[in-house]
Amino acid sequence: MSSRSPLAPDRFPDLPPIAGVTVQVARAGYKAWDRYDLTLVTLDPTTVVAGVTTTSKCPSPEVEWCRAALTLGSARALVVNAGNANAFTGNRGRAAVEAITARIASALDCQPSDVFVASTGVIGVPLPIDKAEAGIDAALQATPCSWEDAANTIGTTDTFAKGAVTSGVVDGRTVTLVGIIKGSGMIAPDMATMLGFIFTDALVDPAFLQTALRDANRTSFSCITVDSDTSTSDTVLAFATGKAGNAPLVDAESPGADAFRAALSDLCLQLAHLVVRDGEGASKFIRIDITGAESDRSAHRIGMSIANSPLVKTAIAGEDANWGRVVMAVGKAGEPADRDRLSIRFGTTQVAHDGLAVEGYDEAPVAAHLKGQEIDIGVDIGLGDGRATVWTCDLTHGYISINADYRS
Amino acid sequence: MSSRSPLAPDRFPDLPPIAGVTVQVARAGYKAWDRYDLTLVTLDPTTVVAGVTTTSKCPSPEVEWCRAALTLGSARALVVNAGNANAFTGNRGRAAVEAITARIASALDCQPSDVFVASTGVIGVPLPIDKAEAGIDAALQATPCSWEDAANTIGTTDTFAKGAVTSGVVDGRTVTLVGIIKGSGMIAPDMATMLGFIFTDALVDPAFLQTALRDANRTSFSCITVDSDTSTSDTVLAFATGKAGNAPLVDAESPGADAFRAALSDLCLQLAHLVVRDGEGASKFIRIDITGAESDRSAHRIGMSIANSPLVKTAIAGEDANWGRVVMAVGKAGEPADRDRLSIRFGTTQVAHDGLAVEGYDEAPVAAHLKGQEIDIGVDIGLGDGRATVWTCDLTHGYISINADYRS
Repeated sequence: MSSRSPLAPDRFPDLPPIAGVTVQVARAGYKAWDRYDLTLVTLDPTTVVAGVTTTSKCPSPEVEWCRAALTLGSARALVVNAGNANAFTGNRGRAAVEAITARIASALDCQPSDVFVASTGVIGVPLPIDKAEAGIDAALQATPCSWEDAANTIGTTDTFAKGAVTSGVVDGRTVTLVGIIKGSGMIAPDMATMLGFIFTDALVDPAFLQTALRDANRTSFSCITVDSDTSTSDTVLAFATGKAGNAPLVDAESPGADAFRAALSDLCLQLAHLVVRDGEGASKFIRIDITGAESDRSAHRIGMSIANSPLVKTAIAGEDANWGRVVMAVGKAGEPADRDRLSIRFGTTQVAHDGLAVEGYDEAPVAAHLKGQEIDIGVDIGLGDGRATVWTCDLTHGYISINADYRS
Repeated sequence: MSSRSPLAPDRFPDLPPIAGVTVQVARAGYKAWDRYDLTLVTLDPTTVVAGVTTTSKCPSPEVEWCRAALTLGSARALVVNAGNANAFTGNRGRAAVEAITARIASALDCQPSDVFVASTGVIGVPLPIDKAEAGIDAALQATPCSWEDAANTIGTTDTFAKGAVTSGVVDGRTVTLVGIIKGSGMIAPDMATMLGFIFTDALVDPAFLQTALRDANRTSFSCITVDSDTSTSDTVLAFATGKAGNAPLVDAESPGADAFRAALSDLCLQLAHLVVRDGEGASKFIRIDITGAESDRSAHRIGMSIANSPLVKTAIAGEDANWGRVVMAVGKAGEPADRDRLSIRFGTTQVAHDGLAVEGYDEAPVAAHLKGQEIDIGVDIGLGDGRATVWTCDLTHGYISINADYRS
């Protein structure tokens, strides 16, 4: 791992075990490194699963496998390979996924379609089947490990392990949700971030879990960007073991459904923010609130246009309240906007209003705000009620160093 | 000016005078600098004009003025202000444009609508009318200057003066076209680049000039990107004085129309390439050819997705043939693509074919190609006959330094 992001939380949170979930890690040796790089999560037979995957037109075989398996809704295991994305590897990539799922199915006496696989790392090199199989065998024999070990093992260019926990009360029973995630570059998840895994003991119908995850994704993973580059492998899977003893959550009318959805959304947002905090080279965590757009969808697009603008991101890196670049990014978004109604704030200070710089605004609090690590930009489009919030990081020399030096 | 781009041509080309065109420059002092920053081009009364402008939803008042004036099709003067974009300045910005056009109209005894204005520089500060008026008065008194002086005067963060020349034979008469252009960052011109000006002695109907310019734009300015950020001020204007003595060009059937269009397209492409060669921080000039897409439009979008990908651009900066990132960028473009039909080459070496790395391809010529300054990437989508070529530069520490340090 490179040096820890300055935006990283102080420490990995305390994540409790989830009944019905066992985590083991192994050294498959997918790269020439001395670290754990294969994660195996085994799940009790009651477990259901939901997921969202990349919108890339060139997805990895893992993504295709998960999409097919998700239609069945049950899960017994998850395998995560780090160091090799197995993307763009043709039949040999597919064969590796099939070998992994067959080996686990045989060990756990389940269907291959109960086994979910995700891989992350270099694109274009088929995942070596022999290393995967040996790694799986080692993981199956290993002592169960902590969530933090698993979070470290799924990482690649990540500079810190990322995990989050939340809970909700469903019909008098507390259900717990934990998640781990990895991602740092190639982050503009159109449906999900690189690899995120959520585990809960809630008893929940897979169709409802899917709906809840899709909704949570819309305001979390789909609202972050590091570098506008959407990965071939983005996957978020949510597994529910059903051990909490709650009345089953079958649809939005079930008792506790709102609490469960709120908890899931909270967890997804925590995980999404952790990815931004580990954005390659990031020195500032940037929140962008769009209000007054013609629709929420329009607000989201304008927000992402700002969040993906290299000129806005470098201005923030330089601690420069260059709101002209924000105007530029609103203008290029292609969404309805009226220059003469735009208002922009940095922190709590309005710097432009109705298409004009606010004359004589106090620059001191703006400068002080921009020197901090948490940057807050507000843009009111002045046209309607549409709103969205998106998060990104700044663009620094660190991003260039990491990505111009990373060899394929 | 910062140090000259390593991709700059050796010298400014020899641009001949265009009959009916006079160029003068002055020091308006829009910024605290000791340089010429106002350019005045006066045009004989026979002159017609065509133009393309930014698709930004937040255009500058100059862009709005030019759009309105273009509907009339005649021109007597062009004023270009450097150091202040006058964008997002509300009524005061509009007032500055009106003051400039009124002053020129009075001096030249023409209509204000015959006067075209373009401004470039900082956004959000109204252009000071007193400085503009004094600058115009000084320019009107100045000795006519060279094209190179004008090209220097319209520049801002540009590191070299950019001009190009071409000619065509129209019905037995040679017509000459010269152009000057500025631009280095905030370059993803959706209809035009930051500021480009073309002058020809051809006798041409304004409607046909507009058609020819729009077509030329489609394969030149619309096919370049430096940083994906579309400016509020992008403008390309073409002025034709009609002094060449050619039979009038009125439509595509006119004798010599093909030659004129070819010459105009050639000039636009030369100018567009110069902007890429001055991309902020650029060390490599990158050409990306897309073939086999479902349509030309789809090919263009895929090409721009690759050209705008920070991960592709940093890989080229690092001289890394990381074609996995090219696959990623194809996948995120949202256009029809089939992973298993994609083929990719660097230089003349095929590195991936039918969705797989070409086994045992010779890495030596690829490494040698990437060490050069002119990078050539080919992507065949394998679906249809759609094709496009786009140009960009790499993303380096220089871009970050320039844009994190540039103060608003």
